[in-house]
Amino acid sequence: MLAELVRRNRSCRRFHQEHRVETPTLRELVDLARLSASGANLQPLKYILSNHPKQNEIIFSCLSWAGYLKDWPGPEEGEKPSAYMIILADTAISQSAGCDHGIAAQSILLGAREKGLAGCIMGAIKRKRLREQLAIASQYEILLVVAVGKPKEIVVLEPLPAGGDVKYWRDAKGRHHVPKRLLDDIIVSAFE
Amino acid sequence: MLAELVRRNRSCRRFHQEHRVETPTLRELVDLARLSASGANLQPLKYILSNHPKQNEIIFSCLSWAGYLKDWPGPEEGEKPSAYMIILADTAISQSAGCDHGIAAQSILLGAREKGLAGCIMGAIKRKRLREQLAIASQYEILLVVAVGKPKEIVVLEPLPAGGDVKYWRDAKGRHHVPKRLLDDIIVSAFE
Repeated sequence: MLAELVRRNRSCRRFHQEHRVETPTLRELVDLARLSASGANLQPLKYILSNHPKQNEIIFSCLSWAGYLKDWPGPEEGEKPSAYMIILADTAISQSAGCDHGIAAQSILLGAREKGLAGCIMGAIKRKRLREQLAIASQYEILLVVAVGKPKEIVVLEPLPAGGDVKYWRDAKGRHHVPKRLLDDIIVSAFE
Repeated sequence: MLAELVRRNRSCRRFHQEHRVETPTLRELVDLARLSASGANLQPLKYILSNHPKQNEIIFSCLSWAGYLKDWPGPEEGEKPSAYMIILADTAISQSAGCDHGIAAQSILLGAREKGLAGCIMGAIKRKRLREQLAIASQYEILLVVAVGKPKEIVVLEPLPAGGDVKYWRDAKGRHHVPKRLLDDIIVSAFE
């Protein structure tokens, strides 16, 4: 059931790095994005895939992890993602991707979760460095990096009271806690 | 299986208008969005729901339908959506929603599809008029309208060769055809 999949699809930042995510799996995930909605059906999104240690390390070096965890610089060796999908906008097709990359990333991560994988949508990217290191043509705008791997962390959802703090946090056992606004706090009005 | 749900989750623009979408259903769909990822966990998205004929008609009057179908002004009476979800960004929380609304809209529409409903993510909105008519406070940026209802059209996916035309079209039987780029055309490179 989708509700269960959505609930289990938590952003994950520590992985069983030794668990390889094969290229056909990454291609299946891109295919989910490919078949998802696109504004005016323009389909400007393009993808760079990586499950190779060398390029993975380059991509990893261009990412900023978990901004709220000030004493955690990101996953250590052995817990890094096994694969990445860089989501690009092909500016030769459209100057703006609208929110297509959000639609695409959600399809990808729900698909990954169904396969027992997990991931994280990352927007804090050293884009200039990533472009140079992977020789990404200027035609492509770097929108997001989706990290993927076999999850090695427990993520717990918490109710977030109105006016509460949105910052996620880790407890003494290393479990990652994520406060989520309450349903009635995000529905402004209902005409029924 | 998610791949099947994604494939069946086609943007729909003609509905069995007499089929009411109840408020608890709309709330369940918002809940899927609520539990989806949000950049920096800020959760700036808020929602206005409508399944009431009066407000539905107001929202309908603020939407532009199917830009590529020049001789089709939108669904006629009897085929209009039964419900709407207006996705807002609460600027008191964040000035930018990033691509959160794409993530949210995809969760909502996959959830709708699972329930036998369908919908359409609409960005071509007369925002000033909608704000005035529904008295939407200036604190809220109007991002998207998601139309929802029981589908009354057949949507067919077509392969889109590189350099082909992205425009969707209707055949003589009224079936809606949507060209989609090929998987190998959207994968720029794979480091494997």
